[in-house]
Amino acid sequence: MSTVAIVGATGAVGEEFLRVLEERRFPVSRLIPLASAKSVGKSVAFRGESVPVKDLARFDFRGVDVAFFSAGADRSREHAPRAAAAGALVVDNSSAYRLDPDVPLVVPEVNLDAAKSHKGIVSNPNCSTILLVLVLAPIQRHVAIRRVIVSTYQAVSGSGARGLAELSRQIDEDKAGAPPTLEVYPDPIASNVIPFVQAFGDAGLTTEEWKMIKETRRILDLPTLPVTATCVRVPVRRAHSEAVNVELARAATPDEVRGWLRTAPGVRVTDDPARLEFPTPRDAEGKDDVLVGRIRRDPSRETAIDLFLSGDQLRKGAALNAVQIAEALAVSAPAGASRT
Amino acid sequence: MSTVAIVGATGAVGEEFLRVLEERRFPVSRLIPLASAKSVGKSVAFRGESVPVKDLARFDFRGVDVAFFSAGADRSREHAPRAAAAGALVVDNSSAYRLDPDVPLVVPEVNLDAAKSHKGIVSNPNCSTILLVLVLAPIQRHVAIRRVIVSTYQAVSGSGARGLAELSRQIDEDKAGAPPTLEVYPDPIASNVIPFVQAFGDAGLTTEEWKMIKETRRILDLPTLPVTATCVRVPVRRAHSEAVNVELARAATPDEVRGWLRTAPGVRVTDDPARLEFPTPRDAEGKDDVLVGRIRRDPSRETAIDLFLSGDQLRKGAALNAVQIAEALAVSAPAGASRT
Repeated sequence: MSTVAIVGATGAVGEEFLRVLEERRFPVSRLIPLASAKSVGKSVAFRGESVPVKDLARFDFRGVDVAFFSAGADRSREHAPRAAAAGALVVDNSSAYRLDPDVPLVVPEVNLDAAKSHKGIVSNPNCSTILLVLVLAPIQRHVAIRRVIVSTYQAVSGSGARGLAELSRQIDEDKAGAPPTLEVYPDPIASNVIPFVQAFGDAGLTTEEWKMIKETRRILDLPTLPVTATCVRVPVRRAHSEAVNVELARAATPDEVRGWLRTAPGVRVTDDPARLEFPTPRDAEGKDDVLVGRIRRDPSRETAIDLFLSGDQLRKGAALNAVQIAEALAVSAPAGASRT
Repeated sequence: MSTVAIVGATGAVGEEFLRVLEERRFPVSRLIPLASAKSVGKSVAFRGESVPVKDLARFDFRGVDVAFFSAGADRSREHAPRAAAAGALVVDNSSAYRLDPDVPLVVPEVNLDAAKSHKGIVSNPNCSTILLVLVLAPIQRHVAIRRVIVSTYQAVSGSGARGLAELSRQIDEDKAGAPPTLEVYPDPIASNVIPFVQAFGDAGLTTEEWKMIKETRRILDLPTLPVTATCVRVPVRRAHSEAVNVELARAATPDEVRGWLRTAPGVRVTDDPARLEFPTPRDAEGKDDVLVGRIRRDPSRETAIDLFLSGDQLRKGAALNAVQIAEALAVSAPAGASRT
C-alpha cells in the first residue's frame, strides 16, 4: 500500500487522477491532495471521503511513495526534485523534464523499459504526443516510419478547468448575442478553431508543435524522425483528435495496418466505413484506449497511410498514463530499489 | 441589366446569393427565386422587397440571363441543361458537372480563362477546394508544387441551414443534459469533430476528400498533382479552415511565400506570431478574402511549407465565387456570345 500525493489536485487533470486511482484500485493507503496556498480550505472527494487540500509549498514529502505532479512546469521545477529527494517516485505531467536526458519520458505501452532507469522522476508526455505514439509504435514495429505529418483537433480540457469554463461561457454569450469575453485564449473558441496552442516558439512553430515533434522522436527512440505538426484548438470539451499522414519505408495495405493496430495495447480500431464507424472525440471520452480509424492508403504517395485518431486528453493523455507508469514501476521494482 | 434566377433560393447558400448580389450591385433587373414545390408560398427579401418563390419544376427559363443553381446535384442534373438550352448562363454550385470535361470548373482569380469556353454551364467548385486553390495558385506561379496534404476543419453551414440548426439544437441539448438528437450527421457535432463529410467513396476516402483531390488538380491544371485530404466537420457555424502541407520543387522561405500571397487576389495574409495573428474561421466570417497564416518551413522536409487558412464557406466558398464567375463572363462577353 502506498502514500500518494497529487500536486494540482483541484485542477481538471487532478480530478481525473482521483477518478483513475479509484477505478484502477491503485493501492492507496493515504491520499494527500496538494495545491497552492489559495486552494487550502478546499477538499477533494476520494473513495467517498472528503480529503482536505494541503499547501504544496509547505509540504514535506518524506513518507510519500508516489507523487503525481500536474500543476505546471514552474511548480514541477520547484518541487519535484525535493519530492524525489525525499524518496517519492515523482510522475510529472508537466513539460519541465520531458526533454531532460536524465528523466525518462514514458508511455508504458511503447517504452516502459526506459522508465526503469529513472532517478526519482519520470516524465509523462504531452497529451497529443501520447495519443500519437500509441498508434505509431505498433506500425513502427512492423515497418519503419519515414515521416509523420499531423494536424490536431485539441479539446479545451487541455487548458484545464479554465478552458472548459471559457468554452461554456462563450457558448452562452453567443446564444445571448453578446460578444465573447476572452480570458484563456487569444480568440473566441466557441464556434471557432484556433491554430495556436500555448505559445509561439522557434521557426514559427508553437511550443505545442515542438513538443509533438521532439517528444515523439524521443519516445519512439527515433531521434531524427522527420515530423511536422499543426496544433489547433477546437470547441470540444474533453478528447483530442489527430489527422495523421504516416510515410513508411515500404507500402503497407490498410488491412495490414489495421491488423497491427488491433493487437496493440491501449489502441482500439474503430474503422468501418460501411457502418459509418470512425473515431470521434465524444466516443473517446472516458475511454482508456485511443480510437483509430479512417485508415487508408494516401492517394498522393504509395508508401504513405492516412489515419484519424481520438483519445481522452485528461485520461490516457494525462492521468491514466501517469498512473500506469506508477503501477508498472511499483510492480517491477519495490519502492526505491531502482533509484540511484 | 439581367434577369437572374436563383435555384435553391431558400437555402443557406441561396440567402448568401441574395446578399452578395445586393452588395456587389450586380445589375439585376428582375430576380426570380426558385425552389421545390414545397417552398412555394415563401418569399425572399431582395433590395428591400419581398419576392415570392416559384416552383423550379414548372419554371420556364426563357428570358433568364443568369441562373445560379444551388439545390444539390440531382436538381442541377435535371434542370441546369434546360436552363442553359433556354439561353441562360448557368453557374452551378453543385457537384453535378465539376468533373465534366465539357463544363469549365472555375475560380476566377485562378483560372478565369477556362470559363470562357463554356457551353452554357460553368461549375462552381467545392467550397474547401476554392479556398485551397486560392492559396496554392499564387505559390504554383513561382515554384512548382509537388504534393499537397490537407486536413480540413469544416463548418456546419456546409450542410446548409439544417447543419446550422443541428449544431444549435445539440448545444441546447448538451446544456440541458439531454442526449443529442441526430438528424443531419451520423454523430453529434456539438462538442465533437466528425472525420467524415458527405459519404464514403472509393478506397476508404470520402466523396468530399475525392472532390478536394480531383477538383484541385483540375482547377490548377495539374492533372497528376499528388494530393491527399482528410475532411473533418467541426462545431463552427460558417467558415471552413484547412491545415495544409505544401511540398515544392525547391525550398522557399516563409517570407517568399508570404510575399507571393500578399499580392494574390482573393487572399489576405494574416500572419504575425508576435501579435498572435493567424487566421480563424470567426475572423473569416463575412469576408470575401481567404485568410492565410501560420506560414512556416516544415521541419520534416526542407522543400515543404506548412500553412493554415480560413475562408467563409457560404461566401467565397459558394455564392461569391459564383457571382464573380457571372460578373466576369458578363463583362468579357455579351450574353450568349461565347456559347456554342
